[in-house]
Amino acid sequence: MKETSSFSAHLKANALAVEELLSDLLGPVVGMDEIARPRNLLAAMRHGVLNGGKRLRPFLVSASTALLGGDADAALRIGAALECVHCYSLVHDDLPAMDDDDLRRGQPTVHIAFDEATAILAGDSLLTFAFDIIAAPETPLPDRQKTALILALARASGHGGMAGGQALDLAAEKSAPGEAGIVTLQAMKTGALIRFACEAGAIIADASDEDRRRLRAFGEKIGLAFQLADDLLDLTADAQAMGKATGKDAARGKGTLVALHGQAWAERELEELVAQAENLLQPYGARSAILVETARFIANRRS
Amino acid sequence: MKETSSFSAHLKANALAVEELLSDLLGPVVGMDEIARPRNLLAAMRHGVLNGGKRLRPFLVSASTALLGGDADAALRIGAALECVHCYSLVHDDLPAMDDDDLRRGQPTVHIAFDEATAILAGDSLLTFAFDIIAAPETPLPDRQKTALILALARASGHGGMAGGQALDLAAEKSAPGEAGIVTLQAMKTGALIRFACEAGAIIADASDEDRRRLRAFGEKIGLAFQLADDLLDLTADAQAMGKATGKDAARGKGTLVALHGQAWAERELEELVAQAENLLQPYGARSAILVETARFIANRRS
Repeated sequence: MKETSSFSAHLKANALAVEELLSDLLGPVVGMDEIARPRNLLAAMRHGVLNGGKRLRPFLVSASTALLGGDADAALRIGAALECVHCYSLVHDDLPAMDDDDLRRGQPTVHIAFDEATAILAGDSLLTFAFDIIAAPETPLPDRQKTALILALARASGHGGMAGGQALDLAAEKSAPGEAGIVTLQAMKTGALIRFACEAGAIIADASDEDRRRLRAFGEKIGLAFQLADDLLDLTADAQAMGKATGKDAARGKGTLVALHGQAWAERELEELVAQAENLLQPYGARSAILVETARFIANRRS
Repeated sequence: MKETSSFSAHLKANALAVEELLSDLLGPVVGMDEIARPRNLLAAMRHGVLNGGKRLRPFLVSASTALLGGDADAALRIGAALECVHCYSLVHDDLPAMDDDDLRRGQPTVHIAFDEATAILAGDSLLTFAFDIIAAPETPLPDRQKTALILALARASGHGGMAGGQALDLAAEKSAPGEAGIVTLQAMKTGALIRFACEAGAIIADASDEDRRRLRAFGEKIGLAFQLADDLLDLTADAQAMGKATGKDAARGKGTLVALHGQAWAERELEELVAQAENLLQPYGARSAILVETARFIANRRS
């Protein structure tokens, strides 16, 4: 299952569009109702979010929106908002009190390039800005859909989702969770935002409840695949390829499903998850090709 | 201008209602779309938000909503959301990398009672939860008003508002700002949320643009008064009365308008601000009595 060049081009083009939009939104011009944009804080926010990531989550928003015939500009803005949430979580996770990482994608992390206080505030501001972007009049969606997106994003990223998952992850360093604990932790820490990315397409397209459930289930499958692939990478990749420290999970004694069941199991499980994800999209026929490729890309990524 | 006992009773009753609602919302029951509520994180969030504050901002939301005939239950929920934002900012401001405070209202701060990582995540989660509360189906408002509230709250609390003000405040420790810089810093750090509290009433009541501008201007005046009173307190109150360290601004060489112009000037200015605030509410006649009392309370508070 080789990544096709057209998929790769699609992914890159979307990432570029997301970066451009975020760079515009985080420009020096003070928006309506804002008092000022402190230069240093803005620079730290830009450092945290304009970092050349793959922008996989925004890509999922755009691809799932396209599948169901929703507005592409709206999807781009929701994707940018989601990326703000994802990047805020990286900025805070990298802090000395959390994972204490100096490097992220080969660059100094925000608290290294700036300072700890600025990194905390930049993360806070990116999180806040995500909801600003969705609610803003520039997002071409009815208020009903905006409210649904804000609620779903808040639930995916708060104490019952991503932030809660990070809390469980910290606890796991002290007391190793069992298999069920690992599954919950991962569903929260990485799964919830990926699920949201797929579900968002259904909300943006104002699709049926059945479509929304299907995209949500698809998001759950690829969220699991993402985490398994990540755990495999943590075992096998070297620091150079990842642009960050690796092998840290093992060093900290953190349990992963790969550690519990072994690499061969994980590789079979990844194939199974991709097949299940594909199967969920069968009703959409050929239109789902790009999402299916995304699922394969996630399972097979090497960085 | 003595605080009347009926005002004090009003303030306390509203604070109790806000605490009850927040305690319910932050209970152990997992909400729709949440995966789990990690016990330790939830306890830290509760520690950060259920701390017996005066709940002045929620009170302003309820009073300004009542002035314009809006729904009281909606106002209570928006007030609770706003308090989550206010309290998240306190949790993060207290962190060692920021103001490094061990005490808040006489109690250990969140990073002391728990740990730094948990305090960061509890703050993040409270901020996220604010938008959850507003967007949730339980908030009895049309989506148009929810979106307007979310946008206004995000702008008031993000890089162009409160968080930006905190960034300026940190910078002020290294290089003292001039008068204009102090005014901007304070308008962002404390003014923006107080202005939002008052403006929120106009949004909840779906009032006219004229009403909204008036409440907003009222909020700006009492925000300035709040900060001046705070600066006066920092100079004069002892740590016991405040339940936290005092005199810290002066010790850090932070500029305040009180330091620039003196105590007598600040006391005259406070009276002037209250008069201007009162004046803005004249069109509402006797109905505005409680907001006028709030303005006086803010200017004269001793803790």
